Amino acid sequence: MAVQVTENTPTVALGPAAALSCRECGQRFALGPIFACQECFGPLEVAYDLPSGDPEGLRKQIEAGPDNIWRYAPLLPVPTDVADKPNLNPGFTKLVKADNLARELGVTGGLYVKDDSGNPTHSFKDRVVAIAVEAARAFGFTTLSCSSTGNLAGAVGAAARRAGFESCVFIPHDLEAGKVVMAAVYGGDLVGIEGNYDDVNRFCSELIGDPLGEGWGFVNVNLRPYYGEGSKTLAYEICEQLGWQLPDQIVIPIASGSQLTKIDKGLKELIALGLVEDKPYKIFGAQAEGCSPVSTAFKAGHDVVRPQKPDTIAKSLAIGNPADGPYVLDIARRTGGAVEDVNDAQIVDAIKLLARTEGIFAETAGGVTVGVTKKLIEEGVLDPSLTTVVLNTGDGLKTLDAVAPTSGPTATIRPNLDAFRAAGLAR
Amino acid sequence: MAVQVTENTPTVALGPAAALSCRECGQRFALGPIFACQECFGPLEVAYDLPSGDPEGLRKQIEAGPDNIWRYAPLLPVPTDVADKPNLNPGFTKLVKADNLARELGVTGGLYVKDDSGNPTHSFKDRVVAIAVEAARAFGFTTLSCSSTGNLAGAVGAAARRAGFESCVFIPHDLEAGKVVMAAVYGGDLVGIEGNYDDVNRFCSELIGDPLGEGWGFVNVNLRPYYGEGSKTLAYEICEQLGWQLPDQIVIPIASGSQLTKIDKGLKELIALGLVEDKPYKIFGAQAEGCSPVSTAFKAGHDVVRPQKPDTIAKSLAIGNPADGPYVLDIARRTGGAVEDVNDAQIVDAIKLLARTEGIFAETAGGVTVGVTKKLIEEGVLDPSLTTVVLNTGDGLKTLDAVAPTSGPTATIRPNLDAFRAAGLAR
Repeated sequence: MAVQVTENTPTVALGPAAALSCRECGQRFALGPIFACQECFGPLEVAYDLPSGDPEGLRKQIEAGPDNIWRYAPLLPVPTDVADKPNLNPGFTKLVKADNLARELGVTGGLYVKDDSGNPTHSFKDRVVAIAVEAARAFGFTTLSCSSTGNLAGAVGAAARRAGFESCVFIPHDLEAGKVVMAAVYGGDLVGIEGNYDDVNRFCSELIGDPLGEGWGFVNVNLRPYYGEGSKTLAYEICEQLGWQLPDQIVIPIASGSQLTKIDKGLKELIALGLVEDKPYKIFGAQAEGCSPVSTAFKAGHDVVRPQKPDTIAKSLAIGNPADGPYVLDIARRTGGAVEDVNDAQIVDAIKLLARTEGIFAETAGGVTVGVTKKLIEEGVLDPSLTTVVLNTGDGLKTLDAVAPTSGPTATIRPNLDAFRAAGLAR
Repeated sequence: MAVQVTENTPTVALGPAAALSCRECGQRFALGPIFACQECFGPLEVAYDLPSGDPEGLRKQIEAGPDNIWRYAPLLPVPTDVADKPNLNPGFTKLVKADNLARELGVTGGLYVKDDSGNPTHSFKDRVVAIAVEAARAFGFTTLSCSSTGNLAGAVGAAARRAGFESCVFIPHDLEAGKVVMAAVYGGDLVGIEGNYDDVNRFCSELIGDPLGEGWGFVNVNLRPYYGEGSKTLAYEICEQLGWQLPDQIVIPIASGSQLTKIDKGLKELIALGLVEDKPYKIFGAQAEGCSPVSTAFKAGHDVVRPQKPDTIAKSLAIGNPADGPYVLDIARRTGGAVEDVNDAQIVDAIKLLARTEGIFAETAGGVTVGVTKKLIEEGVLDPSLTTVVLNTGDGLKTLDAVAPTSGPTATIRPNLDAFRAAGLAR
């Protein structure tokens, strides 16, 4: 299926996307539903012919665009008329100036939470799926699929129906109830796999190589090069919302590691395009202790990531064999950042810290980034005098179990003043 | 505490808000934390000195404002510098053109879903609370409180912490788990009341008249006149998002009825200000059969609303004695609309209909509006050839129980192709 790019290669119309190129050997292939280099088996990513020479014009074009990721269509592998197509139109979520949290953590340089719980299905996955949907449309697929730790299943289920696709998504059989119902309610097929996420992933790779999977667009497998680009929009939005400036420090959760690498790619694009002034920035990766293959490698000074068997409440980050782990290590080291992890109790504490300071109810992955930010400040690794952005990639309503045991009514009383007085709640 | 307005009455600075006026007798009072007329006990509402004479300038000012309800600050009872204060900044949620749903329902005139699940705590309550917070700040309260069927408790809990208030909120003891955890996670006091919402409400009225409640701002009691105005922003946004046009028909859920009356007020203001062209519009109210005091009165041709004991899965609408019921009847009749109800099974069907057509997962209240829209079309009451807006005021993740029994995995299998084939899922 893979076609090496020559002068005469016909291409599908995906805006500025010019080809797929191998991240390892640089070999270029025509745009298509492929994900691994046929020369060296390295991962493929989208290569662009980006607009150049008129940063001010481009900035104005973006600012006049829709209040969603399609404002960045000139920088994404999507058709130029993407905003007119049926899509969930995620993005342009709030960048919350978190002054209360900053006071608690001692951050003086400006602390922001990029809150992706405001996306249509309440996680950052809507961004990547939105791009994959348009790629699937371009390649003529009729069924959308994925392997998922939960958030992605809901995002694919919802996006598929809105965009007019069938869907069949695969999840570990023991996910949080909220994520299971959300993945099922859109009416596509939902398949529980007896195993963990890595088992689900292996199964999907098998399915895609089998005639059974023909005509299926797996958003995070054969559409992965396009899908991954959706995470660049987090970088674009953060910088635009900071007034077209780079933050000094960003704390990003690590599951497969893709999001972190694409945010770095997005920041570099903005610099190259002249949309932001070039200056150093540091990227920090955040993992749960119960699934910390990348932070373990970072701390040990290793270049390779040894797989782990996940055991953490942060199920959306529970990928024991993260495909982009080595790239994450590169980026953290190159930018002067770090990779750190927190345990389940610290994750719960951090969810509640964010809730009681800023009124943001994050899912466990948000507890991981806030908890890691706190830990990195205490360790003297993250500089509290610099502008810092922390990502919340999901919604607390999807991981209620994490906080439910410690988040109930203060009291339950009969409806009268004596009962209220007796409960000791008067101020 | 109530002060009748004279030339010399000092007023707090709440933007264009000039006074409180009685909806029944018209008596005016100075802006303060009062909610009932001292002359006739009628409900008080905010009276304005609205900007006039330059609709084009006002429209431009709004369009240049922030992407939240504060873009309408010139029309709201809030300080002019409201956008600089710590607040959850809700609003400007998506108006989704629902072409797939329109096809299913046979709507040809354009069908839109105003999706308030995109608000910070995922319900429209963030709008009303945001206004109440600014009133509480102006009046010097330090504790925020409310009676709630769940959504409001979460909205108050979150907004209070962000804005720097203490909070103590009251809910019926038997709410959905998600709403309880969400109300508690922000760290303020949460009190379960052994009784239904009407019992909770009565208790709060008692508390507010007692020294125990001194210094407390109850967003939906003593701050109610301000709070209620937040719903006007739904009208403003719908019209702006339609290109500064009135829709022909709007379907709105009824709990207390306040939201419906304030949307009508907002539409009338836009007409008076010249921001939209004057033309007829019809307002339809939607209730659950298990709590349908207003639709019962509408169908019987009554002007008064007889209280009911609620028994429905649509708990956020389960107000058996709706304070604004008579005003809702007036508006539905005056505009040529109607009030209708659907039963619990129809609510579940409608939640799933919206999910599988548009990828929007609504809470039960959204099932009520979509279900009522369908029923009104089938009855020939709602005209499918006209532009119609249906409100989804909340999030499906908060009422999982409604759809969980019928929304699970299609199959659970071992991770291999034989198992997949055996499950009959191949396409």
